[in-house]
Parts: sequence; C-alpha cells; structure tokens
Amino acid sequence: MTEPDFRTRYPHWTPVTLRFSDQDATGHVNNVAYAAYVEAGRVAFGWEHTRPLLVEGQDLFVANISISYRRELRYPGTIEVGTGVLKLGRTSITLGHGIFRDDLLAATAESVVVLVDRASAKSQPLSDGLRAALGAERLAVRATSA
Amino acid sequence: MTEPDFRTRYPHWTPVTLRFSDQDATGHVNNVAYAAYVEAGRVAFGWEHTRPLLVEGQDLFVANISISYRRELRYPGTIEVGTGVLKLGRTSITLGHGIFRDDLLAATAESVVVLVDRASAKSQPLSDGLRAALGAERLAVRATSA
Amino acid sequence: MTEPDFRTRYPHWTPVTLRFSDQDATGHVNNVAYAAYVEAGRVAFGWEHTRPLLVEGQDLFVANISISYRRELRYPGTIEVGTGVLKLGRTSITLGHGIFRDDLLAATAESVVVLVDRASAKSQPLSDGLRAALGAERLAVRATSA
Amino acid sequence: MTEPDFRTRYPHWTPVTLRFSDQDATGHVNNVAYAAYVEAGRVAFGWEHTRPLLVEGQDLFVANISISYRRELRYPGTIEVGTGVLKLGRTSITLGHGIFRDDLLAATAESVVVLVDRASAKSQPLSDGLRAALGAERLAVRATSA
Repeated sequence: MTEPDFRTRYPHWTPVTLRFSDQDATGHVNNVAYAAYVEAGRVAFGWEHTRPLLVEGQDLFVANISISYRRELRYPGTIEVGTGVLKLGRTSITLGHGIFRDDLLAATAESVVVLVDRASAKSQPLSDGLRAALGAERLAVRATSA
Repeated sequence: MTEPDFRTRYPHWTPVTLRFSDQDATGHVNNVAYAAYVEAGRVAFGWEHTRPLLVEGQDLFVANISISYRRELRYPGTIEVGTGVLKLGRTSITLGHGIFRDDLLAATAESVVVLVDRASAKSQPLSDGLRAALGAERLAVRATSA
Repeated sequence: MTEPDFRTRYPHWTPVTLRFSDQDATGHVNNVAYAAYVEAGRVAFGWEHTRPLLVEGQDLFVANISISYRRELRYPGTIEVGTGVLKLGRTSITLGHGIFRDDLLAATAESVVVLVDRASAKSQPLSDGLRAALGAERLAVRATSA
Repeated sequence: MTEPDFRTRYPHWTPVTLRFSDQDATGHVNNVAYAAYVEAGRVAFGWEHTRPLLVEGQDLFVANISISYRRELRYPGTIEVGTGVLKLGRTSITLGHGIFRDDLLAATAESVVVLVDRASAKSQPLSDGLRAALGAERLAVRATSA
C-alpha cells in the first residue's frame, strides 16, 4: 500500500498552515507543534460529528494522546490532518490521525476522548445516536496485503 | 473608505489557519497568537522579497513589533495577513501589516527589521537593489478622504 | 546608568521559564515568545493591582502592545519580566515592561490596556481607586544623566 | 501509595511556569501545552544525562510521545516535571514523566527517543557508557502494594 493509498483511509480532513514559530533550534518543526496539529484535527472532527449530538451538560474530555513521528516537517507550507474513528468504547472514543504533507505521512497519532457529565465530571455511556454517527466515520480497514 | 477598500492597500498576502490552542480563557484568540500571525506575514514577505537579495553573511533582525488590536478573533477559521512596506530607512525596513478575517480588520501591526552583518552584528545600509525591490511593495497611500 | 540600576525601575516582577519550543530555526528564542513573556508580566501585574478594583461587568482589554528587541535569549533558563505604570489616561493604562536575563536587558515593551464595560464594549473612565493604586506602581523616573 | 510518595519515583525534576496563553477557551490549560511541559522535562534530562555522552554526529530523535491527562491545570503557577528512565532498548530510550502541581499528579507521559547517526539518519546501538549513565536514572519501581 503506497502512502497516497494510505491517505484515503481518513474520512475527515483539516488543513493547518505551518508557522515560523513552530520550528525549533533544529531547523524543523518542533515536536510540540504536532500536538497542536493533532488537536486541530480532533476539534474539527468533533465540532462536525460529535458536538451536535451531545446533550446539555455533556462534554468530551481528552484522556490520552500519542504521537508517532515519521518525517520531519519544514516551514513554510500547509499540512493536512486526516482523522477517523479507530475504536468506540462504552464511554470513550479513540480517534486515529495522520499528518500529511504533499501525500507524505509526517506522523500518526491517536486521541482518546471520554464523554463526561460536566457537573459530576463522571464518564457517561455514548448514546446510540453518537455511536451511529461515529460508526460512519471510521478509519478505513487496512488492506490485508499492506 | 470601507474596510474592503482598506484591504486593497496591502500588496502581499499570507493565509494562517487559526488553532484551537490560539484561544485563551476569554474564549477568543489570545493576544500572543496575533504576534505569530504578524510573523507569518513578515517572514513570508521577506522570503519572497528580501531574502533573495541579501548578500552572504547578511541577515534581517527584528528590532521592534507593535500590534493594535481592533476586533476579537474566534476559532475556527482562517485569517489573512496583508503586508507591505511603510518606510525605508538607511539600514531598516518598516513593514505595515493588516490582519483580516472575512474582509474585517482584526488588527494592524508594524514590524521594524534591520539589515545586519551576522558576524559583527552591526547594521548595514540597504543596497540599491533591496531599495528598488522593496519600493515596489509599498502599502498603498491612504485616500485623502479616508 | 548601568543595566542593574535600570532593573530597579520596575516595581513588579514575574519569572518565566524559557521553553525549548520557544526557540526557532535561528537557534535563539523566537520573537513571538517575547509576546508571551510580556503577557506574563501584564497579567500578573493586573491580577495583583487592577483586578481587585474592577467593578462587576468591567474588564481590561489590550489595545496595543509593542516590543523592542535588544538581546537574543537562549534556552534554557529563566527570565524575569519587570512591569510598572508608564502613563494613566482617562480610560487607559500604559504599562512599561523590561525582560531581563541575569541583569541584562533582553527587551523593553509597552502594553496599553483599556477599561471597558463588557456588555457594551465601551471604554470607561478609570476610577479614583484604580488611579491611586496604579499611581503607586509607577516605573521609576529615569535618572537625568542616564 | 499516596501521590506525594509517587512523586519520589522520579530522579530528575524541571520546573515550568504556566503561561496565560497556555489556557484555552475552557478556562484551563490547553492539552497542547502539556506537550511543551513534557518536552521541558525530556530536554532538561537529556542535556544533563545523555548529551554529554553522545559521539560527534550522533543525535537523539523523538520517535513517540504519549500523554495521559489526569487533572486539569489552572493558570497561574508553576508545575514540576519529573523524569526518569522507564526502559532501555537496543537503540532507544523510553522516558517516563509525571507533571505535578503542588504534589498532585496532573498528567503522566512517556517519550521514546532513538539514538541516530545524523548523516545517515540510521538508528545506532546505545553505548555502554550511555546505558550505565541512564541505568542510574531509572524511575523507581512501583511499590507492589500500590
């Protein structure tokens, strides 16, 4: 599976312009900036797919993020963050992300977000409506020969 | 002069995507993020218009920036940074910037950059070539009836 | 006037640890990070001296910041931001800031903040109480022989 | 095991001042800022323990970071990042981090860094010297009754 094929796995896309201040002393984009790119993908995905289905008083909290760095990024330019659903738990959603620059994969990432009741800060089961909406936004299954 | 007219004053444009992490506790974009947007405009302008004309060992250092905040910005979306030359000194260049969102002016800014010899860190006179190139990228004169 | 003397001009101090991600491709601290240091000084000053005196519904909005860069900063370490009142207008406060590293001045800055009524977004005259409190936090007058 | 006990597990500590701009629209510190705090711990640890033992041309690249969010952080204040060695691979080092505020654990994190030859960008086995130095900086073993 070539990387352009890999790219088609993600159902949702968000562009992010690189900033000069994203770089660090190594002359390429600093690791911390990738966390902002992943957040850009997660929040844009959430505003489109989950926020409209939350009940008053509910919120989604980020429980965990992990980022695997594949290729350095260099300013200037625009990257695209692909996002899709990797796994639905009882109260949590695991999103998979791919950060691409010109069809080359710069990083993969996962975000685990948990549905909580804001007042009690307790986790809550995902509603059937959320499950259905998120089930339609899954990361495509890897080709078996990948 | 309406703001869309004002917008035409800037010869150079750079788009910047707003980031969720640009916001602060007030719910709108934090003041510090504007400095990154101004930098985006300054650096993109410089890479196009001044860097190609620098002599080996020369660099442009930022001496001063100032930002006047006009309108709050709200995530998500894309802003555009307009940039042009306000003034050419003996060794310095003053750039004017306008940060626009959908034709509305969110901030104006100025950056003063100084041509220096990197080894001695001393300022140097702008070459005739730089003056000519930068003279072609001036901010349009304000209409007298503005 | 030596810089250590200059340092005594500021009545209020805030320490800020430099971050690796504050650097940019030049190997020293990026210009944008200074705006975060100035904000650290301004907000800490405000939480101590102005917030306790605001009336319900009032807020202080930043109208303008300007930063003059004097010396590059290098990671790692801690800087200290000195802050004091430069000028009191009818509805605005101008703060002066000095960013110091080990008694050396890395930058000076000014912030203009305006007292506003949050509901109407209109500026409001500073109360006598605010004037008195802020009058006690002025930047020391420059020595005439400086 | 109480959290203050947990705190003693980390052999290396780095303080980081929270910044107003670290917050986001939720009114607490943005998830991305934690990545900068983890980096602060990782880089400070590396400059003390690994950099002095690298051979000319070698570098440590970050391959993976993961962050588990436990408690929200609120501006202003200072956090402390605890860091220690979790695992030594053939060519990689896994660091464990704990972000603490006043003895309360706000997040745990792991960073995987790989020793590379900068010219070839190929991974290289950790030297015996590095193994010995890093072996002395391990995260303390969890108490079995924890």
